[in-house]
Amino acid sequence: MDFQKKLNLDIGKVQDTLQSFIRTQITQAGFQHAVVGVSGGVDSALTCFLTAAALGPENVLALRMPYESSSPQSLEHADLVIQATGVNQKTIPITEMVDAFLELVSDTDPIRKGNVMARSRMIVLYDQSAAFDGLVVGTGNKTEVLLGYTTLYGDAACGFNPLGDLYKTQVRQLAGAVGVPEVIIAKPPSADLWVGQTDEEELGFTYEEVDQLLYLLIEEQYSLSSCVEAGFKRSIVEAVVKQIQRTQFKRVMPPIAKISKRTVGVEFLEPPDWSF
Amino acid sequence: MDFQKKLNLDIGKVQDTLQSFIRTQITQAGFQHAVVGVSGGVDSALTCFLTAAALGPENVLALRMPYESSSPQSLEHADLVIQATGVNQKTIPITEMVDAFLELVSDTDPIRKGNVMARSRMIVLYDQSAAFDGLVVGTGNKTEVLLGYTTLYGDAACGFNPLGDLYKTQVRQLAGAVGVPEVIIAKPPSADLWVGQTDEEELGFTYEEVDQLLYLLIEEQYSLSSCVEAGFKRSIVEAVVKQIQRTQFKRVMPPIAKISKRTVGVEFLEPPDWSF
Repeated sequence: MDFQKKLNLDIGKVQDTLQSFIRTQITQAGFQHAVVGVSGGVDSALTCFLTAAALGPENVLALRMPYESSSPQSLEHADLVIQATGVNQKTIPITEMVDAFLELVSDTDPIRKGNVMARSRMIVLYDQSAAFDGLVVGTGNKTEVLLGYTTLYGDAACGFNPLGDLYKTQVRQLAGAVGVPEVIIAKPPSADLWVGQTDEEELGFTYEEVDQLLYLLIEEQYSLSSCVEAGFKRSIVEAVVKQIQRTQFKRVMPPIAKISKRTVGVEFLEPPDWSF
Repeated sequence: MDFQKKLNLDIGKVQDTLQSFIRTQITQAGFQHAVVGVSGGVDSALTCFLTAAALGPENVLALRMPYESSSPQSLEHADLVIQATGVNQKTIPITEMVDAFLELVSDTDPIRKGNVMARSRMIVLYDQSAAFDGLVVGTGNKTEVLLGYTTLYGDAACGFNPLGDLYKTQVRQLAGAVGVPEVIIAKPPSADLWVGQTDEEELGFTYEEVDQLLYLLIEEQYSLSSCVEAGFKRSIVEAVVKQIQRTQFKRVMPPIAKISKRTVGVEFLEPPDWSF
């Protein structure tokens, strides 16, 4: 099997679309500025490059938010992005706020701690977006959105998401084309929530593999068994389908119990319902 | 004008609907337990009463999360709810985590600080829901959802929302019927983010007034000028319509730039798209 070429982007067109999307989202909301959390990874690096190009680097604030156990390399790679794009920058460590909470609970574990870290970064980003009078730009890609490989109300929190329709391997393609430093593109992806964590080890498959599989499942609407016929291991196809299904709640608004004639998100939809 | 009677609930039916909604949401997600942040206000009190009745009080954890400036009365009223329902309880103050963050920023203001507090409570609730193996039950009512009178990723964050289709005055009706202590129903609603804050002073109108207006705008689809003809002050109608419009972003998922054939939230919708 090799569906990798199906994932090849028309780079120039996609870059234009995303930069224009960023500009439209910011100006339609009545803003000029944007805030991006820059982790040192390829998703936030690409987001920062595109946002700087869309709005001008003087209108962008990049935030580095290390925890004490964060890799020093992450901080350096974030700095490479900040230097290359010329955006404003601020470094606000989350160690004190995370530890202040963890001292109150006796029984935490790495997953819970990672979620507290991701959500603390959300607090910093949103607070600083108020101070900078801008919107928070999301950095999640389509692979992680579909797999639900995110912290709800943490790294998934944003005003709008330019990369949410690009698979991880497509993020790498575009990142290479817009000038994201190669060292950032080439390193193993990691949420860096604990020492030695890598996405691919945690997920149990490589992004090359899962992106091709997701392409068939989502874009081509293959059935589970057609994916197996196409050459994917049944256990992996089943695991991926299950992961998409069980993380649905991360991709929708929380359901509201229906009582009235016109419930928010059901009959009362926006903007069609905006003509009062 | 008096549209208050339009807001009268069929109490028994609504109570059954909401308790069955809570049970369905919890069990469909594969859980048995629920976590509710209990502030001492009427929304979270009613939510706690309904959740305890739906799941049994032994399956519910109520969290009190005071900040040092929170009213001591709030804490006492939350305790009334806990005692009356018989649910499990925990008190985890947010003072240390909020202050640890505020020490890092020099230029905060009451609104930003209030948002940090609301989001810190979300962190506590979600962390404790992981420890208790339950889902977080939302407490937002339809009036605040429509006015966007919430902190995004803060008090608006939840697994599902039983009260999101009840206007504030309807919450009071139902609260009275299910046994929420009268002292909680009768006091002026407040987010209690700073001393002396009340909703109605901050919003600029009473809930009785705005609920009747929202009823006409949303349920009856009145135009702005029909609301004025019905007796509402033009300046208030205009302010309310504007507030609904400018807080739209709080009621929808963050938009994703469209690149592929099947974008999450556009062509790829769930659960209809779940048959792989």
